[in-house]
Amino acid sequence: MDERVSEHAEVLVDWSARVEAGDDVVLAVAEGSHDLAVAVAEELGDRGANVVTVYDSDEVDRAYKLAHDGDFDADPGHELALYRNADVVLRLGRGRNTAAEADVPGETEQAYRRRRQEIREARMDTDWVSTVHPSRSLAQQAGMSYEAYRDFVYDAVLRDWESLAEEMAQMKERLDAGSEVRIESGDDEITMRVDGRTAVNSAASVAYDSHNLPSGEVFTAPYATEGSLTFDVPMTIQSRRVRNARLVFEDGEVVDYSAETGEDALRDVLETDEGARRLGELGIGMNRGIDRVTDNILFDEKMGDTVHLAVGRAYDACLPDGEQGNDSAVHVDLISDVSEDSRLLVDGEVVQRNGTFRWEDGFESS
Amino acid sequence: MDERVSEHAEVLVDWSARVEAGDDVVLAVAEGSHDLAVAVAEELGDRGANVVTVYDSDEVDRAYKLAHDGDFDADPGHELALYRNADVVLRLGRGRNTAAEADVPGETEQAYRRRRQEIREARMDTDWVSTVHPSRSLAQQAGMSYEAYRDFVYDAVLRDWESLAEEMAQMKERLDAGSEVRIESGDDEITMRVDGRTAVNSAASVAYDSHNLPSGEVFTAPYATEGSLTFDVPMTIQSRRVRNARLVFEDGEVVDYSAETGEDALRDVLETDEGARRLGELGIGMNRGIDRVTDNILFDEKMGDTVHLAVGRAYDACLPDGEQGNDSAVHVDLISDVSEDSRLLVDGEVVQRNGTFRWEDGFESS
Repeated sequence: MDERVSEHAEVLVDWSARVEAGDDVVLAVAEGSHDLAVAVAEELGDRGANVVTVYDSDEVDRAYKLAHDGDFDADPGHELALYRNADVVLRLGRGRNTAAEADVPGETEQAYRRRRQEIREARMDTDWVSTVHPSRSLAQQAGMSYEAYRDFVYDAVLRDWESLAEEMAQMKERLDAGSEVRIESGDDEITMRVDGRTAVNSAASVAYDSHNLPSGEVFTAPYATEGSLTFDVPMTIQSRRVRNARLVFEDGEVVDYSAETGEDALRDVLETDEGARRLGELGIGMNRGIDRVTDNILFDEKMGDTVHLAVGRAYDACLPDGEQGNDSAVHVDLISDVSEDSRLLVDGEVVQRNGTFRWEDGFESS
Repeated sequence: MDERVSEHAEVLVDWSARVEAGDDVVLAVAEGSHDLAVAVAEELGDRGANVVTVYDSDEVDRAYKLAHDGDFDADPGHELALYRNADVVLRLGRGRNTAAEADVPGETEQAYRRRRQEIREARMDTDWVSTVHPSRSLAQQAGMSYEAYRDFVYDAVLRDWESLAEEMAQMKERLDAGSEVRIESGDDEITMRVDGRTAVNSAASVAYDSHNLPSGEVFTAPYATEGSLTFDVPMTIQSRRVRNARLVFEDGEVVDYSAETGEDALRDVLETDEGARRLGELGIGMNRGIDRVTDNILFDEKMGDTVHLAVGRAYDACLPDGEQGNDSAVHVDLISDVSEDSRLLVDGEVVQRNGTFRWEDGFESS
């Protein structure tokens, strides 16, 4: 077996989930993730943790949901008991076909999710971490060969996370201390307020409130957005390709939008509810191990030389205790390449120019 | 997908496990059983049952056990909670390699099992059923092509179980009413007492205390065995081939034994403990859908035209409430072909001659 699979398992268990002896772990294995599951089981055995392995198969789920009359039981007792008694949940995505559930009607999927709220909360109350095993189906989605895709994934996952966390702390400090963020890119400029909000140093570890491996972004929950930005990183939104979307904000709300491709997908998102026209997230990609777009939001949004804005729901972690941020049924990330002709400023100080941060070699302050 | 996969799923869910709406089902899926899992999930969705799908991977288990220091935690809480809250457990075997755990030391395996007694009991308290999906590895073990092996499995599984259960009831009645069973085959004859014992009509359904699909045998817990029998159906015992084993009993105990091949494996079994030299089971194979030996005890022992005796542990279901039968750490089945030159008698009445039962066409009473 590629020894990077074992290294991936080790990072997941030690750095990300901080598994200790005696922890009750649920290991959720997608159809394409068998090899990583074997490697993770070896780490868990070595640590003296206990493991229940769940089969996280899109094809099994699809068959179940399509056959059901749609009146799902609320939070089945055996599943709820499993997650309520778990300390850690590790999800190893994904399947052999990223479109395996494409023909499950949206309303069936929503009905299923709505009836599983306590299970979801129980899972979120654990030290959960999601990661992906490089599969042929993900390589295909990225338009890459399997060999090249594996190199890509391991470059993103097998980082010196401790040192990246320290670097990201500098970005977090600036956002936490600042009041206003301004992004200038090409002909666009956009400003948003961040005072009173707390940035998350998303360093791929539960110790940092970060639940994805790989991660490598600093994000916060902005408000009072003004101006425009163009999102030139291609994306798939609700199964439709979107290219060069552009949003125009006034008083915190989208007042105009356009896209070269997929404008209807953008419209559907923005018309979901009131919160879908306001920002839920500003994120700054800082994982330089991710150097290309692969049409997988878990990777794309962490790419170095990019920033992303999400319309819709804000994360609680960015808000003062008890305060609610922007609320919406959606959270859709849009990504902008800032490697050229771009600046990111916090309270007037240039923090990043053309992708280079001010603490990096080659940064030009003006 | 082969429509027999769906029929198998339907038999499992309806006839074997008697699943009803609202049942909390654990579906344990081995590496090679994905297609059957999809079909079973469809049946469960249709019935309005709830499902947690567990990944029952020998390779994951092996990695975990080999990495562990062997001091396993007793009955981990999350796993115990899962099974205590389950109504039904469906196990779909097996893996892609029947030897996947061949290098896990026996003492590690035993230590692991010993620490999981409450979990095992919780699982046994559900309406559990084990079945197998025809895989290439099982075909290989049977020495058969994949296509031919699939035909073999579905012939065994897709029976008219209701009618087989009625036929088997006739065998059960005779054993329950009788005091002594005599088997004559070739130059051997053997007698055993069965009075005070209850036969199980193993009709592949929890409604019959039968937890394997396929099944198709009637078995009881005999005692006071006298005489000899030769077991001419080839078997694998503790990973060793055994051919033409012969046991000689006096006063209920093995006093002599031999085998053309694998006599050492037979000796190891018989020397395990005191109970290993006494019978734990007499079983009469009645599934005529199983017409050949495939080196898989779940099938072989149910084959029509065979009887089997097991040395070692007896099943509680055959004993009066509270009474304990023969006790042993082992239960090893040995199978005898009775299609020729053979008779099975209960209290002197010939019940089967050369494989034909007295209620079947072609039975010759003398």
